[in-house]
Amino acid sequence: MTITLYDLAGAQDDHRFSPYCWRIKMALAHKGLAYEALPWRFTEKERIAASGQGSVPVIEDAGRHLHDSWEIAAYLDEAYPEAPALFPGEGARSASLFLKFWTERVLHPLLMRLILTDVHGGLHEKDKDYFRTSREKMLKTSLEAVCEDRDTHLANLGKGLAPLRATLEAQAFLGGEAPTFADYIVFGAFQWARCSSSFEVLPSEDAVKAWRQRLLEMHGGLAANAVRPAA
Amino acid sequence: MTITLYDLAGAQDDHRFSPYCWRIKMALAHKGLAYEALPWRFTEKERIAASGQGSVPVIEDAGRHLHDSWEIAAYLDEAYPEAPALFPGEGARSASLFLKFWTERVLHPLLMRLILTDVHGGLHEKDKDYFRTSREKMLKTSLEAVCEDRDTHLANLGKGLAPLRATLEAQAFLGGEAPTFADYIVFGAFQWARCSSSFEVLPSEDAVKAWRQRLLEMHGGLAANAVRPAA
Repeated sequence: MTITLYDLAGAQDDHRFSPYCWRIKMALAHKGLAYEALPWRFTEKERIAASGQGSVPVIEDAGRHLHDSWEIAAYLDEAYPEAPALFPGEGARSASLFLKFWTERVLHPLLMRLILTDVHGGLHEKDKDYFRTSREKMLKTSLEAVCEDRDTHLANLGKGLAPLRATLEAQAFLGGEAPTFADYIVFGAFQWARCSSSFEVLPSEDAVKAWRQRLLEMHGGLAANAVRPAA
Repeated sequence: MTITLYDLAGAQDDHRFSPYCWRIKMALAHKGLAYEALPWRFTEKERIAASGQGSVPVIEDAGRHLHDSWEIAAYLDEAYPEAPALFPGEGARSASLFLKFWTERVLHPLLMRLILTDVHGGLHEKDKDYFRTSREKMLKTSLEAVCEDRDTHLANLGKGLAPLRATLEAQAFLGGEAPTFADYIVFGAFQWARCSSSFEVLPSEDAVKAWRQRLLEMHGGLAANAVRPAA
């Protein structure tokens, strides 16, 4: 049975950049599960109404609708215990929760200031107003103002990555010798940046960049082959 | 066989405030291992020379000398596998490394700006010059300058704690339902602040504070009973 994933898309159907959806595409590939990733736009709330809320990723598996990337990952381990674990070993899920919140509360805001106008530029016409209005209300300023002074934001990202960089200088993946869902959570953020903007957010000699490259090439180059804006 | 721990002490022998030593005291208590924590000062490098370096914690166990709190924790799990694990389950150690670096690269600097002059004030006379000189060289400014503008530093700490707070609003410990060494790493930072300064760094209604309280009371109140400066 093929799993259906509702996956945020831009103007082009095959332009997929949601950090949360990338977590799940990497997770499905990690577990070797067949899936179809349908393009979905912010304003198509009714298409995922069966999930009980309005955000993707949503998966449909054997008639069940699940949402929230963290919950979907737990579901996949539970429903497919014979496939490689996303949270290997007792306590691995609890131990990854801090990284999830660090990614969402620290890393996403740092990256956002480098790419938000590009994210908006890549959206489908029917999503652009919705995105601008909802984000500007949340941020209390314009998308353009958020992205002003790129040099400062790049320096702040560099500083903010210190704990990630130190970890990846010591071991190949956040999960150790092989990636776990913790890696996919953080990778999703960088793949969001990479698929939304041609601007390179990582310096060339960097343990974080080397780790991102390993994940880009993993699972048959799933992430490396993703559509991204031309430089 | 009792383990010997060389534990940083202040002017009073029983004033123990090193964040790295607190990790190990909590870890030894977690594993139910008997130990003697000898007072040690920064300038007593020769007393721990057998460890091959000049910092505590150092433990001596059956003739072996071990240093570095991260390595000591791994050693304790390896040498005492029958006692409760500090890193429970395969991969738990790798999964905790990010939290170690976040604590050292983000949390310690945020806390330092609130307590550094108090840390210095509590030191043994023979350590004060060494500490001031080495820290001011590293920080490229005076201890007093680092601690100026407490309100700003307190606000920055509040913001910096966002991922920790979100995690501890969702689960009782970083390790999940029970503490792991990841908890003791982060707790060590707060116990350093608490034992160095009478200044309260956490707001009263706070998931981080509630978690700190649970750990203070754990292991027979080991940390709650620690000597700290009078308010």
